[in-house]
Amino acid sequence: MPGSTPKTSSGRFFEDFHLGDSIVHATPRTVRAGDAALYSALYGSRFAVQSSDAFAGAIGYPTAPIDDLLVFHIVFGKTVPDVSLNAVANLGYADGRFLRPVYPGDTLSTTSEVIGLKQTSAGDAGIVYVRSIGRNQRNEIVLSYARWVLVRKREPGTLAHAEQVPELAKAVLPEQLGEGCPRIELAAYDDALAGSRFRWGDYAVGERIDHVDGMTVEEAEHQLATRLYQNTARVHFDAHAAQGTRFGKRLIYGGHVISLARALSFNGLGNAFHIAAINGGRHVAPLFAGDTVYAWSEVLGSAEIPGRGDVGALRLRLVATKNRACADFPLKAGDQYDPSVILDLDYWALLPR
Amino acid sequence: MPGSTPKTSSGRFFEDFHLGDSIVHATPRTVRAGDAALYSALYGSRFAVQSSDAFAGAIGYPTAPIDDLLVFHIVFGKTVPDVSLNAVANLGYADGRFLRPVYPGDTLSTTSEVIGLKQTSAGDAGIVYVRSIGRNQRNEIVLSYARWVLVRKREPGTLAHAEQVPELAKAVLPEQLGEGCPRIELAAYDDALAGSRFRWGDYAVGERIDHVDGMTVEEAEHQLATRLYQNTARVHFDAHAAQGTRFGKRLIYGGHVISLARALSFNGLGNAFHIAAINGGRHVAPLFAGDTVYAWSEVLGSAEIPGRGDVGALRLRLVATKNRACADFPLKAGDQYDPSVILDLDYWALLPR
Amino acid sequence: MPGSTPKTSSGRFFEDFHLGDSIVHATPRTVRAGDAALYSALYGSRFAVQSSDAFAGAIGYPTAPIDDLLVFHIVFGKTVPDVSLNAVANLGYADGRFLRPVYPGDTLSTTSEVIGLKQTSAGDAGIVYVRSIGRNQRNEIVLSYARWVLVRKREPGTLAHAEQVPELAKAVLPEQLGEGCPRIELAAYDDALAGSRFRWGDYAVGERIDHVDGMTVEEAEHQLATRLYQNTARVHFDAHAAQGTRFGKRLIYGGHVISLARALSFNGLGNAFHIAAINGGRHVAPLFAGDTVYAWSEVLGSAEIPGRGDVGALRLRLVATKNRACADFPLKAGDQYDPSVILDLDYWALLPR
Repeated sequence: MPGSTPKTSSGRFFEDFHLGDSIVHATPRTVRAGDAALYSALYGSRFAVQSSDAFAGAIGYPTAPIDDLLVFHIVFGKTVPDVSLNAVANLGYADGRFLRPVYPGDTLSTTSEVIGLKQTSAGDAGIVYVRSIGRNQRNEIVLSYARWVLVRKREPGTLAHAEQVPELAKAVLPEQLGEGCPRIELAAYDDALAGSRFRWGDYAVGERIDHVDGMTVEEAEHQLATRLYQNTARVHFDAHAAQGTRFGKRLIYGGHVISLARALSFNGLGNAFHIAAINGGRHVAPLFAGDTVYAWSEVLGSAEIPGRGDVGALRLRLVATKNRACADFPLKAGDQYDPSVILDLDYWALLPR
Repeated sequence: MPGSTPKTSSGRFFEDFHLGDSIVHATPRTVRAGDAALYSALYGSRFAVQSSDAFAGAIGYPTAPIDDLLVFHIVFGKTVPDVSLNAVANLGYADGRFLRPVYPGDTLSTTSEVIGLKQTSAGDAGIVYVRSIGRNQRNEIVLSYARWVLVRKREPGTLAHAEQVPELAKAVLPEQLGEGCPRIELAAYDDALAGSRFRWGDYAVGERIDHVDGMTVEEAEHQLATRLYQNTARVHFDAHAAQGTRFGKRLIYGGHVISLARALSFNGLGNAFHIAAINGGRHVAPLFAGDTVYAWSEVLGSAEIPGRGDVGALRLRLVATKNRACADFPLKAGDQYDPSVILDLDYWALLPR
Repeated sequence: MPGSTPKTSSGRFFEDFHLGDSIVHATPRTVRAGDAALYSALYGSRFAVQSSDAFAGAIGYPTAPIDDLLVFHIVFGKTVPDVSLNAVANLGYADGRFLRPVYPGDTLSTTSEVIGLKQTSAGDAGIVYVRSIGRNQRNEIVLSYARWVLVRKREPGTLAHAEQVPELAKAVLPEQLGEGCPRIELAAYDDALAGSRFRWGDYAVGERIDHVDGMTVEEAEHQLATRLYQNTARVHFDAHAAQGTRFGKRLIYGGHVISLARALSFNGLGNAFHIAAINGGRHVAPLFAGDTVYAWSEVLGSAEIPGRGDVGALRLRLVATKNRACADFPLKAGDQYDPSVILDLDYWALLPR
């Protein structure tokens, strides 16, 4: 009967997830040049490949691709109403791979599969593991990643249907990298225009790089960003309701921090133009409007990519802090993170050789 | 003689309007994909038709159309310097009809006709009724609406040239709906991608829907929006001058509230993809930066559109509040609006059948 | 050896500049319709030529050109990491000429030549004069301007390699104007759509125009703008570090003030659609978030452009103030600027004849 069914979704609770569930997420999204402009205004990224059709065209792209993290945020945003509307915490990422460039005009949509479930000992929540897949309008996979998140139960004490913790690779292997990057015309790669004379071979494992600059975040900025990604997590938008939470204010979307840190990392990693994979990541502490973000990187690994003489891969730890410059590379004291640290991300970037 | 005429416009006063006056408003505006991206970042709207070229294309649009309210704001914004620069209050809208889709690349311009004048008993101001018409670059009408606004007199006590109060329909008729929506290929309309399994027939007259989420507004956000629409009403932009007003701060453009409430209404009305008509609307109370907007809807009517088996129309009341969630549908106590209510809008939306 | 070279740039100090040095600045930038949309949202500019493809097309442009000042900011932004990262103050501009229209899709890059050096008497800093050239993807010059800036020495007391102060024209000559503007089809120029009935010949030298409106600036707005231009000057972004400076807060990019004042100047100069040249400019005092910007203009000169019967040039002084309306044209008391004045800009604009 018309009108008999409640029309509003309040999101899935832990009991609503079943192993093997396949979820089609709403709202396909055409990514256009306007989104790229906004992304630029939000983070000030300066990587030449994503900034210039002429530069990208010279080295072998048909046109400047959409920033990898903008792709990530849009693919991720779609999962929020179905996966994490009742989340207590976003616990981690693994095995994220950028498999195909995205260009202005492409339409992104996302599906997720439930690959793991585990209830907490307290019995009022459980960890949901999903693999999310972003596809373009030709149904080609552009991004695949695993994520796990702590989700409330509708009724505390309910048992999980089944439990299983998936095995996830600690890092994407070098031979799995590079699909998201066309073959680069090295002779046309102009270091002066790119803003860095350091190629893949100039970085050493163990090297640490302070990215120097800081960026203060305003409420309007992270709200604009998070809405651009059609991410509806209410903790980012509702200051009225936030008054009743333990923080008392809006939380900034963790992906906003990743994009800020990545943009800051240009100063020191100007040729690391493509994020090929995300090995893992942790939002160590929350960021709030008014805080200033700084970042530093450590080279965790360096690898050739089989069959690719044009680009090499660096495995990078990207650490972001708040309200503390990174000249001395703050990270941990013993097992504990330094109180300034907000992000600890492990990813593979590609650089020209 | 050069230099002898003051170059600055201070806007029309009540005495400057005459019945039948036709006004060509300045600054035609090409609406591009970048405007759509900004609109998305400002409100986080998730209707699939406006978000995805692929989704829109599958159901019969040439490409994703520009959001109806973005069209409204741009057409409206042009009227401000000529109609409401000296307005005391924006009193109402009626008979608003979206008559043709607008696509990226279209150029919008606006003309208005003065259709009514009535001075106030106090004699220091008068109500100006205009019908404003938005056209595209082919001179096709895309939007037509009536609006009335209280405008100051240049000299209190001056008599109006003539008085006339126009008769305006209480609601647009069902047979007048649908021109702004091409025939929809129902078989291609994907509920999962659209984010709602509720079609036109699933809603009942009298049904009320709480849209749950809240959105806090920042000064930077409403200023960006209002400038995007080239709306020059100074009450939205000048905090220095606002110190001397009764509110003491900047007022947020009422259209910003409409767009926020419409975006929030996706949760519960995900398939109401097109605004076909605005029957009437009232900005009940002002919104200020820092306030959080919530919304709920009531189904006022349901109608078939003659000759259209693809879409049906719902007449919806969209109520927005500030700093108060809408689980109990706040509206009025007796004749008085609840103090939280800021918007009471009556419109027709189309949904697939 | 890999890892042996510090990867982070800390910018050039005074000693690092040599007369005749040629600098290729990083990050070519494709300017797209999305950038134009953001520019519109940031300033609310209403000049019809830049706003409407239809209007621009009718008078002889292939499509609406990118706003001249957006071109300026993007070309300028690229110079910051190489020229002014260690600047104490931005001292002035001269001989700025817009030589070719920029359209959506064009890619801008910048080179600079060091044309002058002069150390200060204190010996801890020096003035660096550069001529910066912006080019499109066809290597055509779109903008050329001289700028001088006070830069810290790495080691106080170091002598300059050579000193030379360039001679810079006080004003661009009328015969040098107009290259950035195609021949205009005057018959198609519609004053009503343009928003002003005043053509070039209606302005008199000495005439002063109050632009009436005020615009309050938010932190999020100037940060979005300055990042859009990929301008990395840290004084605009880092509130944490700013606590230790004499202002104690972030400074707003001077170019943001120019764009705000230019947009406000539409009210009074609606047909001054093209900035042909910047004769000189001074940022008299800093602007901070929360301040409200007002503006007024004085007609300093009026000139025919040889061979051009379609457009004429007005030399304009554009003065911006903060937190003070401009009805009485505040400028100087004796030698001192009025404390409200923040910008004193001298430029040539073109208007239809």
